[in-house]
Amino acid sequence: MVSTFTSQGLIRTLMTFTQKLGRAAAATEARLTKLLDELAPPEQTSSRLAAAIRHAVLGGGKRFRPFLVIESAALFGICEDEALNTAAALECLHCYSLAHDDLPAMDNDTMRRGQPTVWHAYDEWTAILAGDGLLTFAFEILAQPETHADAAIRLALIGELASASGARGMVGGQALDLEAEKIDESGAATLQSIRSLQSMKTGALIRFACASGPILAGARAADCERMKSFGDVLGFAFQIADDLLDVEGTPEEVGKAVAKDADAGKATLVSLMGLEAARLQLAELEREAIALLKPFGAQGVTLAQAASFVVNRRN
Amino acid sequence: MVSTFTSQGLIRTLMTFTQKLGRAAAATEARLTKLLDELAPPEQTSSRLAAAIRHAVLGGGKRFRPFLVIESAALFGICEDEALNTAAALECLHCYSLAHDDLPAMDNDTMRRGQPTVWHAYDEWTAILAGDGLLTFAFEILAQPETHADAAIRLALIGELASASGARGMVGGQALDLEAEKIDESGAATLQSIRSLQSMKTGALIRFACASGPILAGARAADCERMKSFGDVLGFAFQIADDLLDVEGTPEEVGKAVAKDADAGKATLVSLMGLEAARLQLAELEREAIALLKPFGAQGVTLAQAASFVVNRRN
Repeated sequence: MVSTFTSQGLIRTLMTFTQKLGRAAAATEARLTKLLDELAPPEQTSSRLAAAIRHAVLGGGKRFRPFLVIESAALFGICEDEALNTAAALECLHCYSLAHDDLPAMDNDTMRRGQPTVWHAYDEWTAILAGDGLLTFAFEILAQPETHADAAIRLALIGELASASGARGMVGGQALDLEAEKIDESGAATLQSIRSLQSMKTGALIRFACASGPILAGARAADCERMKSFGDVLGFAFQIADDLLDVEGTPEEVGKAVAKDADAGKATLVSLMGLEAARLQLAELEREAIALLKPFGAQGVTLAQAASFVVNRRN
Repeated sequence: MVSTFTSQGLIRTLMTFTQKLGRAAAATEARLTKLLDELAPPEQTSSRLAAAIRHAVLGGGKRFRPFLVIESAALFGICEDEALNTAAALECLHCYSLAHDDLPAMDNDTMRRGQPTVWHAYDEWTAILAGDGLLTFAFEILAQPETHADAAIRLALIGELASASGARGMVGGQALDLEAEKIDESGAATLQSIRSLQSMKTGALIRFACASGPILAGARAADCERMKSFGDVLGFAFQIADDLLDVEGTPEEVGKAVAKDADAGKATLVSLMGLEAARLQLAELEREAIALLKPFGAQGVTLAQAASFVVNRRN
């Protein structure tokens, strides 16, 4: 007998936003652990690689992108369990990008989430291969029948994730960012050029996360487009908030080095806009995000809270 | 009116093996160029990244893996044009692995196919991101409807390629190899341990290439297994031949540095077996490969020639 009192829907209603985020993180961590046991058992690969992959992906992080997958799926009637493979695949993709971005040849970061970065805990070649392995896992997970019974939907997820994370998306954004930093020192960055590279570098995966719900539900194209717009607004807000934290946060709050951009003399959205205008822009983006959720009524409340969370986050 | 004299089948019969290899390479190059123009147009990404990706993947190489895709597809009645997206995806995957393996943190190679390696022509971060982009493209290409009309077949290709190239396959093999070289200097390598790591590091992609034909044709499982066995034998032969070239070849023949393994005091299949036993093993593998093709009769002749080509190659 199923008790309505303990049903997933009622529990969700009674939880605070932070509880929901924590619950999604725990569920993602559990699914990632299960999938890694299948896909990277230490006895079927290098034990060093298996450990580095787990270091890169387990035991930390807000799991904000998986949370967006789970909540955008819930908005279209897909339960958490049916969204978790997609959430885990996206987190593998995100964590590969961190393992590679932290490398000495790129951002040269030694700490991440209060822990040593993968190359710092192991070495460079292990971090490069751990990232390569995680990137490959993302697509292996999405190809599994457990991700969705409908082959066309799994292919849509794979196509969208590849396009969001490749040269026209995340990898391209990271290249534009490094190009500006390491090669083109002319300082010709404009708000538009930074907006565009950030939309590729960090925006594309957030947009994928928000679109994955309607894709999993086989929703109509207009719903997918609306959720992509929501993801765009959220991603833009996420980046401004990140830049503000780099200016205003402490390493203890943020869990990694701060003031890196200013120390490097690097133009950011915030340095070009100014602090006050950046804060006003954030508030405007919060309003835009919430307006995009209006057609979903009360169902949209958690994602609206997510927008407020992004705008106000301190880590 | 279709002339039988110019039909693809008749042309194939009249060509020598080297002509077929060259023709497959040219067709793969053309398809890769077309796909890169769609997936990595310089105006939609970093122009530096777009150039590095092209440097990594265009203008060189025997395209042996794409050739195996095309020929294993032909064996099951799939024409070249219908196999080329799969061939191109596999070549993107292979070229990403070269771009990463050549990095200073891994094999530290400066020349490849007679050209500077990607990191040597650009820099390390560009080579890491070019590799990441190419790995992502492989899956983006396989997800395209142009690769095969049937979604289930595209997913089978994606699942097989991910499994062949990830931590249980190519990436895991490279990690085992570097672990032995850079960490475990105890020299405890056995023929079995090297055989196992090479089967992951270089064998898995060759196995995928040979299995992709029956997968594209929706052939029965027994045919897929037979072609995987053929790929295993071919991959093993490929590795022994590669080790022999490292001992016996000149840099001019091979297009890259030779005697690297001996200089590094690294155990290889050949150093453990001895030269004579290695040559005998190669001849035995050639016989095994040809025996596996027997059920296909005269249709199997090109792949049989491929086995002989691998055994006798000088570059």
